[in-house]
Amino acid sequence: MKASVLFSGGKDSSLSAILLDKFFDIELVTCGFSVLPIGDIAQKAAAKLGFSHVVLKLDNEILEKAFSIVVKDGYPKNAINYIHHKAVETLALNDDVTIVADGIRRDDRVPLLTDPQIRSIEDRYGVHYICPLRGYGRAAVNMLVRQYLVIEEGQSDEILKADYETELREVIRQRIGQDKIAEIFPSHIQSRVTGLIK
Amino acid sequence: MKASVLFSGGKDSSLSAILLDKFFDIELVTCGFSVLPIGDIAQKAAAKLGFSHVVLKLDNEILEKAFSIVVKDGYPKNAINYIHHKAVETLALNDDVTIVADGIRRDDRVPLLTDPQIRSIEDRYGVHYICPLRGYGRAAVNMLVRQYLVIEEGQSDEILKADYETELREVIRQRIGQDKIAEIFPSHIQSRVTGLIK
Repeated sequence: MKASVLFSGGKDSSLSAILLDKFFDIELVTCGFSVLPIGDIAQKAAAKLGFSHVVLKLDNEILEKAFSIVVKDGYPKNAINYIHHKAVETLALNDDVTIVADGIRRDDRVPLLTDPQIRSIEDRYGVHYICPLRGYGRAAVNMLVRQYLVIEEGQSDEILKADYETELREVIRQRIGQDKIAEIFPSHIQSRVTGLIK
Repeated sequence: MKASVLFSGGKDSSLSAILLDKFFDIELVTCGFSVLPIGDIAQKAAAKLGFSHVVLKLDNEILEKAFSIVVKDGYPKNAINYIHHKAVETLALNDDVTIVADGIRRDDRVPLLTDPQIRSIEDRYGVHYICPLRGYGRAAVNMLVRQYLVIEEGQSDEILKADYETELREVIRQRIGQDKIAEIFPSHIQSRVTGLIK
């Protein structure tokens, strides 16, 4: 059975795919708005992992609403959660998708679906939503990452990733300016997968 | 690396071991108080799965305190959580244990460790606490169970399992009587693993 794994090219979504690979046929899915070539970035990481990969174009209205939310809030949490929610729903809408998975860990607070959101998606679209890393803490994830993945790490403005934040930052840069990005997004360490340890 | 998986002989702990088996050396661990031969019950299920299995005797004081809690409360939640917490701690105390895992699912409310309890155990004992099924809903678990396990299901008073509830019920039966069990424990479906689908 196919599992569609939301894929940013980072270590968490990559490890999630590796955990599920023993039990399902993995298809990595990168969701984006074509603001930046994040599909290509993700495709390179997917090729290193050896999984099939597709790019799913999300409705531009989702980006517009996320932009409004983040500018109004002044912090990214609700906007990122909104995009993630819509990405899971868009993926779940596909007739050939029955398992939607992502790389959410135990300690993650953003993005995060609430239990009622999850149950609603599973009921409305007839899918299973699985987070293979939800029961793993940061240290346990890092232990498995060291065992299976070669990664590059850096500050979030240095590592170009195929995640929701990357395109949201770019839209803010284009419409408001670079300074606004630093004001809204806290600097944090990002990872990008560059190889698989066999 | 070894992963010590708390094992009741039921489908959730069995499936957790199967999920982890691809990445760790599995040792199933059944915790109990020697009130009933639950070690033997679990050993039979473990043999069907083909994993090594040990029985860990918990301190009788834990059972005494759990008995006090459940009689005072009139419902099992806090007593079961208390035993589970102490079982994880007792297992984590062992020098050769670095990964403690259990079969908690996304929808489980009992037993459940809180985030502060988990962080405290991981910090104090230098272990990773992993719940491989924490990101799986009931339907996704059942889908995998059908693929990998042969199980027997029945009401909780019919299926003798190697879980905390089984011995707690027995102590209540011995000290207070059968009627008190029905008063305290809601009837619910239990599972016992009787085979592995290869």
